[in-house]
Amino acid sequence: MVIVMAKGATGENIAAVSRLLEHHSLKAHISQGSETTIIGVVGDKKRLADVNLEMLPGVEKVIPIMESYKLASKAFNPQGIVVNIDGAKIGGGHFAMMAGPCAVESEEQIVSTALAVKQSGAQFLRGGAYKPRTSPYAFQGMEDEGYRLMRLAGDEAGLKVVSEIISENNIETAAKYCDMFQVGARNMQNFRLLRELGRSKMPILLKRGNSSTISEWLDAAEYIMSEGNYNVVLCERGIRTFETATRNTLDISAIAVIKEKSSLPIIIDPSHAAGKASYIESLSLAAVAGGADGLIIEVHPDPMSAMSDAAQQLNFAVFDNLSTKVKKLVTVLDKQM
Amino acid sequence: MVIVMAKGATGENIAAVSRLLEHHSLKAHISQGSETTIIGVVGDKKRLADVNLEMLPGVEKVIPIMESYKLASKAFNPQGIVVNIDGAKIGGGHFAMMAGPCAVESEEQIVSTALAVKQSGAQFLRGGAYKPRTSPYAFQGMEDEGYRLMRLAGDEAGLKVVSEIISENNIETAAKYCDMFQVGARNMQNFRLLRELGRSKMPILLKRGNSSTISEWLDAAEYIMSEGNYNVVLCERGIRTFETATRNTLDISAIAVIKEKSSLPIIIDPSHAAGKASYIESLSLAAVAGGADGLIIEVHPDPMSAMSDAAQQLNFAVFDNLSTKVKKLVTVLDKQM
Amino acid sequence: MVIVMAKGATGENIAAVSRLLEHHSLKAHISQGSETTIIGVVGDKKRLADVNLEMLPGVEKVIPIMESYKLASKAFNPQGIVVNIDGAKIGGGHFAMMAGPCAVESEEQIVSTALAVKQSGAQFLRGGAYKPRTSPYAFQGMEDEGYRLMRLAGDEAGLKVVSEIISENNIETAAKYCDMFQVGARNMQNFRLLRELGRSKMPILLKRGNSSTISEWLDAAEYIMSEGNYNVVLCERGIRTFETATRNTLDISAIAVIKEKSSLPIIIDPSHAAGKASYIESLSLAAVAGGADGLIIEVHPDPMSAMSDAAQQLNFAVFDNLSTKVKKLVTVLDKQM
Amino acid sequence: MVIVMAKGATGENIAAVSRLLEHHSLKAHISQGSETTIIGVVGDKKRLADVNLEMLPGVEKVIPIMESYKLASKAFNPQGIVVNIDGAKIGGGHFAMMAGPCAVESEEQIVSTALAVKQSGAQFLRGGAYKPRTSPYAFQGMEDEGYRLMRLAGDEAGLKVVSEIISENNIETAAKYCDMFQVGARNMQNFRLLRELGRSKMPILLKRGNSSTISEWLDAAEYIMSEGNYNVVLCERGIRTFETATRNTLDISAIAVIKEKSSLPIIIDPSHAAGKASYIESLSLAAVAGGADGLIIEVHPDPMSAMSDAAQQLNFAVFDNLSTKVKKLVTVLDKQM
Repeated sequence: MVIVMAKGATGENIAAVSRLLEHHSLKAHISQGSETTIIGVVGDKKRLADVNLEMLPGVEKVIPIMESYKLASKAFNPQGIVVNIDGAKIGGGHFAMMAGPCAVESEEQIVSTALAVKQSGAQFLRGGAYKPRTSPYAFQGMEDEGYRLMRLAGDEAGLKVVSEIISENNIETAAKYCDMFQVGARNMQNFRLLRELGRSKMPILLKRGNSSTISEWLDAAEYIMSEGNYNVVLCERGIRTFETATRNTLDISAIAVIKEKSSLPIIIDPSHAAGKASYIESLSLAAVAGGADGLIIEVHPDPMSAMSDAAQQLNFAVFDNLSTKVKKLVTVLDKQM
Repeated sequence: MVIVMAKGATGENIAAVSRLLEHHSLKAHISQGSETTIIGVVGDKKRLADVNLEMLPGVEKVIPIMESYKLASKAFNPQGIVVNIDGAKIGGGHFAMMAGPCAVESEEQIVSTALAVKQSGAQFLRGGAYKPRTSPYAFQGMEDEGYRLMRLAGDEAGLKVVSEIISENNIETAAKYCDMFQVGARNMQNFRLLRELGRSKMPILLKRGNSSTISEWLDAAEYIMSEGNYNVVLCERGIRTFETATRNTLDISAIAVIKEKSSLPIIIDPSHAAGKASYIESLSLAAVAGGADGLIIEVHPDPMSAMSDAAQQLNFAVFDNLSTKVKKLVTVLDKQM
Repeated sequence: MVIVMAKGATGENIAAVSRLLEHHSLKAHISQGSETTIIGVVGDKKRLADVNLEMLPGVEKVIPIMESYKLASKAFNPQGIVVNIDGAKIGGGHFAMMAGPCAVESEEQIVSTALAVKQSGAQFLRGGAYKPRTSPYAFQGMEDEGYRLMRLAGDEAGLKVVSEIISENNIETAAKYCDMFQVGARNMQNFRLLRELGRSKMPILLKRGNSSTISEWLDAAEYIMSEGNYNVVLCERGIRTFETATRNTLDISAIAVIKEKSSLPIIIDPSHAAGKASYIESLSLAAVAGGADGLIIEVHPDPMSAMSDAAQQLNFAVFDNLSTKVKKLVTVLDKQM
Repeated sequence: MVIVMAKGATGENIAAVSRLLEHHSLKAHISQGSETTIIGVVGDKKRLADVNLEMLPGVEKVIPIMESYKLASKAFNPQGIVVNIDGAKIGGGHFAMMAGPCAVESEEQIVSTALAVKQSGAQFLRGGAYKPRTSPYAFQGMEDEGYRLMRLAGDEAGLKVVSEIISENNIETAAKYCDMFQVGARNMQNFRLLRELGRSKMPILLKRGNSSTISEWLDAAEYIMSEGNYNVVLCERGIRTFETATRNTLDISAIAVIKEKSSLPIIIDPSHAAGKASYIESLSLAAVAGGADGLIIEVHPDPMSAMSDAAQQLNFAVFDNLSTKVKKLVTVLDKQM
């Protein structure tokens, strides 16, 4: 932490800051410049939580130096975390392909999709049982019955099951059916839910909030990890910007930033980022080459009749074609899928 | 709803769209232009929920014409809603001043603040019992004990009590102590919580998500209202933009937009928008003159020792001075405070 | 400037940074913490322009402490600059009302507008002669003939004339007709133009780029001021955000931030921010109460027939009504208009 | 164009719109719905430029259907444009690698860089002669002498020369030395400059403004093309968002969007997007796999001593390693580099 004093700060102002830091067993390193004075603070950061240095007379601003997450940082686990979901690995050279419909709609729909995406090389079946929708009048999902059908389809096809969890009250029920829980973008800062998931020890796919910084995203991962659950996979799905040609703007740089700052695996969701089927191939291949540890793609037997997000779902043939190209690229990059 | 056909769309493509619409008892009004064909869709919109017109061959895009909220719209209640909290009114010429600390920290802190802000003209005491914080290591609030102290302080000073609710599981307990629940920006799309609050009939202060459009915000209000609870007050508290001089960018235009599109009252939170005490007076007076129905301002007996958000809280003297200016302006504008 | 060393930085890394700083006659103040080392740099900042400390082994990041503008800063001119345009003052308690059409279209249009806005209390006539338009096929303005008509109308009504300048090649011609030059949002970082305007000594109305930070805006003002021209008035006209309910998001906080950081006057353009006539009154009154030094508003004899930006222009009656409310508020705030 | 009438619009309001359209020889196709009426407008769009339908009584909003660019659209040139710069092709399966320093600093610097990047496989030498800088006190480039050194270095290494042009007054001089002109992000809407470049017939590398939509970017290309110069290559270099982990957010989706909407080639600038050398490999490979027609990368003999943008420039060895990986991927994708 660095304290920058205002230009007109007096010697007494500076002395007062020093005294306060010393009072909290912290050391002040003072750099007196021609125009301004800078004070470096040394010691245990947590002691500063209750001290509001910016309010002291003569203080211009306080610049934090350290990120607030620890367990999610690269430094804590420099070799990288590989999340192992009952044999299906994500990270450390293991590339995961997750596919399935936006929402579970019927047994036939989810089973046929599971068999098709398995055939094309996917290891995970995705599908929404609970659908948080912007409008209260839109289809809200099949709820617990949706989880049950996901399990049934996953078992039939030999796929791991990943589905969204939207309430701390539903963890026990959902855990019976899912192999991995997805935390949706809108719940990335639902800290109650994150804590309970941390206690559950279930593998978590943590989507980035559409206006969350990478730093806030890692803070959210820290909520889960601080309860002892390190099985966290990050998922970038587009951020909100001024551009309207795509539903969201896929932040492809997040891959490089996460690889530098964190030990957690990161996968890409091109479907929600693009919001349009014709853009998904380009984004998927970019994600693979950019170093992502996996993809999660929306696939539906008949996108035209889908009950939500129709425009961004691929049919089986288009997905199979995409999957072939992804596998080729994964192999060129010496990873396993 | 308007369907725009692609330039190369064939007569058969257009006929197929028409047939599909007729199949759903909707009428197609076709406008054949020199470059493109446009199809206006007439009939009950809900029939279209399961039809994904964008996937049909030859369709370029589908443009929605109507907003998805109804109860929250101006058209539904053109004269405007006045929220009446046991005599304290918001909207329709009644200007509400809410003030109090970011977080409840102790009985002494909250009672002294309640007495001070009452003295300066506030009608509501604000204060956080549960504090959703970006990092798991930051102070998370006094929880239920915080609610109890809010009630105690509110009663002592003669103020209504407004505090944040962060879990659907806590509504019953919190309702014993609060007169109004605040839904925080991070929970604006926690639809489970919104529905339960809709069933509770408690007055709700619905903060705008920091990256939510006004349209999504009204959709969130619709979740509450669709369960029968019309006691909703909107609160603009700054949106996330590229500018870093302020914590968020206060979207002052939201007042004019809400007044045009919705019947709900809107108040402004300059404290979270600015993130800096010295900017709060300018933003508060702008909000009053711009037509807001109230303000919610952070006030603390000793901001320097506050356990959260210290930089943006006002002390009693600064708040009293601000309140005097606000009252003067409210009077000039022929409103009551 | 503060240099933050990476966690794994060695003693030799730190020594190398110190040596480099000393080589440039700068002093290094080293704060060795438990987790990281921070180096405060003291001395003449300009010496660092050619040294790229972030590339040195073991350096995590470099944090600049000082803003790059000097002449535009509050510190340089703490009492504030009042721009005096031949008797019409802006800043220091003098509130300026500028009004007129988006574009000059004919002598009759501009003269009638000038007479009407003068009658309603404006001191400045605005109007575009050169119109930078997004599409090459849109109306580009009457060019030099437009300037001539502005002068004629301004003289007839007794108003100062402010119009946009879009090329360094046109300054001499335009200066014959205008009292003040507007630099449009798209040209805020056209540094060639800024420098030439700095040499011209003409009063400048510097609009903020729609995605420029306040800091970049003051850097742009610095380009003009560094050539000796201090007659600069800033104009906030909305920034680009994700919200689409308004054309841009008016950054009302810019008033408070500029008043704290800079000595330059700041006026508000609600017309371009809102993009819709019905929102302009709310934004205008908010700007006055928030502390702006003036307003620039689009007014047209017959907005429906305007050749550009029709939706955001007011007719004479609406402007007159707005102007009356603005004057009342200006008086309440003890300013002159 | 579609006109949406307000809910309360009368039959007379609708008739008035119809009459106005007919007066301009346009046809009105009326779709009367249960809640609102929609009017499709058919005929030559240009006739509507002077008519402001949004101002008519009873009109809610006007929705444009067609983009304003024509020559830059896919429809105008469905097979795609290949820009041929004296034998060096961009687009249509030809992948271009452009490399060189942020700024030309000396003959030795630019010649050594040219030889090195040629050796690694580049076909173009990039380098700034005129540097538009945010602060007037930063290094502004070697100006015309910089162009001369670029030519000299390009000739010595056998590379095409691409450099930024910042003034319409400098085109003639710069054209003596450059093979292609870059229009920088800050000048993307300097329409004067765009028009003159359209008249010059020089190949243009048009960078996207950091807050420009893709639609505005293609409108800017249209300015150049409407003067008869079709040798335009688009360059995505990151857009401004709330995320601060990178200098800008690379909009990787722009590749897919441009490939769908336009016939122009698109290359990616990972250096300005990332602002950090360690992120460039990930972004470069993502761009290649995503379908970009080329890359432009900053390379400097000794990044640590660079006079601008040091943190994002690669040294020769790092660039050579990256270039090898890019070539491998380009080959896998059946393109030529």
